[in-house]
Amino acid sequence: MDSWVISTSDASGDAESIMRRGNLYQLANGYMGYRGTLDEYGPEQSVGITLAGLYDRVGEAWREPVNAPNGGFTELSVDGVLLSELGDRVLSHIQSLNLAEAVFTRETVFRVGPADSALTLRSERFISVEERHLGVVRLTISVDAPMTVKIRTGIDGRIWDINGPHLPELSASAPNGTLVVEGLTHENQQRVAVAECIAPAWDEATLANEAVSALREVEQALTPESPLQFTKFFAVVTGNDVANDRVVAEACRVARASQQSGYEACHAAHVAAWREKWSRSDVVIDGDPEAQQALRYSIFQLLITAPWPGSGLSIPARALSGQVYKGAVFWDTEMFMFPFFLHTHPAAATELLRYRVRTLDGARRKARTEGPGYRGAFYAWESQETGDDACSYFNVGDPTTGRDLRTHFRDKQVHISGDVAIAIWKHFEHTGDDTLLREGGAEVILECARFYDSYAYFKREKQRFEILDVIGPDEYHERVNNNAFTSQVARETVRIALAVVAHFRQHHPAELEALLKRLGMADELACLEDLAANLHVPEPDPQTGLIEQFEGYFKLDDVSVDAVKGKRVHPNEYLGAGQGLAVPTQVIKQADVVMMLNLFKDRYDADTKRRNWEYYEPRTEHGSSLSACAYAMVAAEFGNLDYAYRYFLKTAKIDLEAAYKVFAGTVFIGGSHPAANGGAWMTAVMGFGGVQADRDGLHIRPRLYRQWQRLAFSLCYRGDAFQVDITPSKLTVAADPANARFHTLDLAGEAVTCPPGTTVTVAY
Amino acid sequence: MDSWVISTSDASGDAESIMRRGNLYQLANGYMGYRGTLDEYGPEQSVGITLAGLYDRVGEAWREPVNAPNGGFTELSVDGVLLSELGDRVLSHIQSLNLAEAVFTRETVFRVGPADSALTLRSERFISVEERHLGVVRLTISVDAPMTVKIRTGIDGRIWDINGPHLPELSASAPNGTLVVEGLTHENQQRVAVAECIAPAWDEATLANEAVSALREVEQALTPESPLQFTKFFAVVTGNDVANDRVVAEACRVARASQQSGYEACHAAHVAAWREKWSRSDVVIDGDPEAQQALRYSIFQLLITAPWPGSGLSIPARALSGQVYKGAVFWDTEMFMFPFFLHTHPAAATELLRYRVRTLDGARRKARTEGPGYRGAFYAWESQETGDDACSYFNVGDPTTGRDLRTHFRDKQVHISGDVAIAIWKHFEHTGDDTLLREGGAEVILECARFYDSYAYFKREKQRFEILDVIGPDEYHERVNNNAFTSQVARETVRIALAVVAHFRQHHPAELEALLKRLGMADELACLEDLAANLHVPEPDPQTGLIEQFEGYFKLDDVSVDAVKGKRVHPNEYLGAGQGLAVPTQVIKQADVVMMLNLFKDRYDADTKRRNWEYYEPRTEHGSSLSACAYAMVAAEFGNLDYAYRYFLKTAKIDLEAAYKVFAGTVFIGGSHPAANGGAWMTAVMGFGGVQADRDGLHIRPRLYRQWQRLAFSLCYRGDAFQVDITPSKLTVAADPANARFHTLDLAGEAVTCPPGTTVTVAY
Repeated sequence: MDSWVISTSDASGDAESIMRRGNLYQLANGYMGYRGTLDEYGPEQSVGITLAGLYDRVGEAWREPVNAPNGGFTELSVDGVLLSELGDRVLSHIQSLNLAEAVFTRETVFRVGPADSALTLRSERFISVEERHLGVVRLTISVDAPMTVKIRTGIDGRIWDINGPHLPELSASAPNGTLVVEGLTHENQQRVAVAECIAPAWDEATLANEAVSALREVEQALTPESPLQFTKFFAVVTGNDVANDRVVAEACRVARASQQSGYEACHAAHVAAWREKWSRSDVVIDGDPEAQQALRYSIFQLLITAPWPGSGLSIPARALSGQVYKGAVFWDTEMFMFPFFLHTHPAAATELLRYRVRTLDGARRKARTEGPGYRGAFYAWESQETGDDACSYFNVGDPTTGRDLRTHFRDKQVHISGDVAIAIWKHFEHTGDDTLLREGGAEVILECARFYDSYAYFKREKQRFEILDVIGPDEYHERVNNNAFTSQVARETVRIALAVVAHFRQHHPAELEALLKRLGMADELACLEDLAANLHVPEPDPQTGLIEQFEGYFKLDDVSVDAVKGKRVHPNEYLGAGQGLAVPTQVIKQADVVMMLNLFKDRYDADTKRRNWEYYEPRTEHGSSLSACAYAMVAAEFGNLDYAYRYFLKTAKIDLEAAYKVFAGTVFIGGSHPAANGGAWMTAVMGFGGVQADRDGLHIRPRLYRQWQRLAFSLCYRGDAFQVDITPSKLTVAADPANARFHTLDLAGEAVTCPPGTTVTVAY
Repeated sequence: MDSWVISTSDASGDAESIMRRGNLYQLANGYMGYRGTLDEYGPEQSVGITLAGLYDRVGEAWREPVNAPNGGFTELSVDGVLLSELGDRVLSHIQSLNLAEAVFTRETVFRVGPADSALTLRSERFISVEERHLGVVRLTISVDAPMTVKIRTGIDGRIWDINGPHLPELSASAPNGTLVVEGLTHENQQRVAVAECIAPAWDEATLANEAVSALREVEQALTPESPLQFTKFFAVVTGNDVANDRVVAEACRVARASQQSGYEACHAAHVAAWREKWSRSDVVIDGDPEAQQALRYSIFQLLITAPWPGSGLSIPARALSGQVYKGAVFWDTEMFMFPFFLHTHPAAATELLRYRVRTLDGARRKARTEGPGYRGAFYAWESQETGDDACSYFNVGDPTTGRDLRTHFRDKQVHISGDVAIAIWKHFEHTGDDTLLREGGAEVILECARFYDSYAYFKREKQRFEILDVIGPDEYHERVNNNAFTSQVARETVRIALAVVAHFRQHHPAELEALLKRLGMADELACLEDLAANLHVPEPDPQTGLIEQFEGYFKLDDVSVDAVKGKRVHPNEYLGAGQGLAVPTQVIKQADVVMMLNLFKDRYDADTKRRNWEYYEPRTEHGSSLSACAYAMVAAEFGNLDYAYRYFLKTAKIDLEAAYKVFAGTVFIGGSHPAANGGAWMTAVMGFGGVQADRDGLHIRPRLYRQWQRLAFSLCYRGDAFQVDITPSKLTVAADPANARFHTLDLAGEAVTCPPGTTVTVAY
């Protein structure tokens, strides 16, 4: 097994298989995602070029990302018969994804003509990481007998949308031989243009602008000796990038410039950039090819969606694999993806948080409008470009009635603000750089703390504040009180806000004064002190060690997950939302207390972790892709590596195996799972690798899984880089020669000084 | 129209008609209810003798009142053909209910024999108000041609139950010619016995104990000249009345003693007692026969269910009309029935409240077990004999799925405790007698206030306490915050508790000290002061005058009742319970703000009442029988008597017209509506009559409906009695000669002194 390559020779034409391959083989570059469909596919096969950060709404349907016209389209026919991987003329088909270079390749042999001659179509495709507007497809057509092949290639304007059309009036043109399809979004009239050039140029081609598509048609006489090769360079530009009236010109400019540079140069730049990415983020697992491949694939998924510096973008819950989940950013990013970037690509991690800074006003608007007297920042549960909440109050469809169910994800899942604040603070602790704090991060944190201050109630007889009426990570139990996770996140946020104030008071007192004045918060700091000191967080029971997920949870019916599921009348029936089958039971959707034990792992001993893990694990449905990695990491913490490994594989293989559920109620939720991918990385590096990089320093206390002979990875910490190599008995750390500082590391409990360019090894 | 008589010649045999006539023609005496079924009916026709205060549970079904074997059973046949009002041999049928005497009569003429001769069966039945264990039926059989009639009469042990059998092993016997059927309840093994005697005695009868029934069989040769008349005396006694081992003997004793006294004497005592009842409670409406009859019928319903002194019983929401609503006591009693008794039969009013005193421990248990840290008394939403809550967490069935829906009636409808406390305080203010307060009433009030103290949260930045997460009277919106009705009831309860303390401090200081010590509440009084002063109750908006029903109500979809109902997929679909169609809308089940405006009518001006009435009225479904009278009374308050009259008729005619809904979801809820009946009395006397009897005195400010020529009624106040007579221009009040005191009355705004035995008249 080459863990760098994913491939299949499945040519199944059923819709589910096409959908799953579309996810599995996707490419992306942070700017756009290109689903893993084939050159000849159309909207029926869910071809999608999904644009990051550009959203649109049509009518009353939900807002979602815009898909661009497909500049990668090519269709062949021989003797009037279309050649498609979906047709009955396929002799063989193989498609593969090279993770190292982020290049997708397909090769299909068709049986053509009266003599059943063979025509081989090979294409290689990449979405350039060096020029983010650019997609490149090189096609090679070879035959085993002379024949004339008709080729139609260009930009397919038939766009697959869930709630489209978002570009309702596309127009096709061909200025100076460059194909262009462009249109305006429905809601905000933002221009989207795709330009495409081809090399070598086909002067003899007919331009066939079929309604919304711009295509070239050419007939080529091929012989076995002279295969045909050509390269498509397509560029996508939108009004998010340049002024609306410059969009078309800019798309043409990029396409032509790339055509001028040629395939080899574009490819080389792309591959070089990818090598650099991998050098920072690869994780080597020797002795376990299955885990190795799954983890590399997971890391690949994260790398293709990373926002570029200055973009102010974050990563949606389904990344750029399509329009599912409205292309919205959830807590997934801060809690599950952010740590990977923080440890490997801090600039990308910073960008994720700048997105939250940029959308602070949206969070303020939500606080103002969502509840009575809420202040500060209540971040969107489903965040798009403005930070206003894209989550609807009726977010799950009921398959038995066809009605939408009222859920409280939007209005009661208040831990989201704290998730953001905690990530910003972790960023500061990890990087030691307070630039982000000074450029809006501190303001976000203060506003989040202020939100909890406005949300909390005081219980006089217990002399404590409580966080009431929330949904924790377990979404099957809505509107609960004193949810341990949420309350601790809220308290932590307030503590962090006070720590931010203390930091600024020491280092940037004038900035602090100005900020507090602007926010009108100077008088509120005493309230925050009070809240931090007296906010109730459920503690482990002194006898059992168990933490009650929320007030009253232990009084619920204690039945099995299977018993609950067995009562369903429809397989896609949603188990939560007030009347769901799990609501009166202890069956939970995903890690909740266990998620808390992971997020605040320093605060609980191994025995508490074990007891709660063992209590909650059999009661967890894992109905969310966020669940498995929390169970994996906490199991590693209390030392059950078999448990940890089982859940590690579950989270790492989620997109490779694609066995997840694709419907929640009636809502299609298929696509990739970058949070689970991030969870796989965390479990490998932080769980088995035992890495903890915090304010105090870099700690590595390996807990290598017994099947693994070696675990090796890179780490960034405080702007410096380290290479870590763990074998069953030794831990080796190499400090990058370019490091700026001496670091004293905690290696398996031993304090070791590691100057730039040195390598240290400890036995453990 | 004789407003004292209800009658029908409907002989329709369909189940719904039989069920409705069973409700309409019911008799009761506070001890037992006898549904208005016919002599020959069996369990299929829902014959029910429902016992007050005796409950039983079988398996996992809900607890409900026990129905007794039917001692009123008689069945005739001629030539082997059964004669039944349900059969095809009915020539004519009429049944009637004399409200003045509480006697039910039926007369049916059957076509019998080969020559189609006529046989007339007439029966008269009453449930004795003088001897509460006794039911009496006198039957007369006459023929127009000689024939032999076979008569089977005795005790039918085939009992109709919703969740039975509650007397699983009945045994039948005939000691000394008295028929007996007796058994033990399932849950608590309480004995229930029915004994029956007949006069004149039939020595020739065959005793036919058919399994669970004890019956006499006799063949009588009848001629036109010699009709047959006989009387059945049946007595019901249970282990609630005497020790289990004395139950049968006591039933026999009552039956035999009544047989000895004979029909005339029993009937005379019953009628005399009823005349006395009516003399205290009749309301005369001249000029509106329809309203007169509906109101008399409503008052009759209340009178038949009144508990007898010393019983410690209250009135269930469906009175004694059957087992519906578990025979449970709701807030209906204190809020809707209690005022009628307080103004007309104070002893019965006291008894209703003694029931709450008696069940205080149940309310304490509910507080302890229902929520985290609740203290004091949280009264049962559905209260049976112990005060433990009979309300289930899944209280409504969903007809489309067959599942039970989670409702929060039990755990969140916290206004119930305050409803009880307010009634107890009103009782004191009205009667001027603090005996009830000293005999447990004060303890109830303090414990209810304590409950709210434990339930409330403090909102620091608003410096106020709030009552969160409740259901107000409008049950379609569950788990709302700052519900105006509930919050005001809670605050009032706390104020009342402080008033109780002040009263006791002045008049019974030692009792107060002992009580506070026993409750451990001495240190809590400062908290109650704080709560009373700072508990938030939503106020009318300064611009619009509108009071928001709960926080966020005005942001809900503002759609019509019909639009919501139009979306139902099943006519019995419940509109609330978290996912119901009304939940996201402003459509409410019943008066909520308007209920508050009525309960606290002194605190709001007429304009506020009008504005809120006009806002909420079109948004109210009136899905509860409690709704109409609140709208009627508030309309009278702000002077729109046409509105008031429309809703008065609606509430007064509810049981006469029986057009109410008989299913909530899948749960059968048919039966009588004593709360609506109480609402009819309140609207007539307090609404149109303008009576307000409070701490300050008796105020009468008539608002006579234009169609009415006269409105006359009796009133009790402070132990004295008054007769009130209102014409369109004059108000006359006669003080009973036996009154103990001089009273200065507020008559249409004029202070008038009214010594015992005098009559005063004012023009208005």
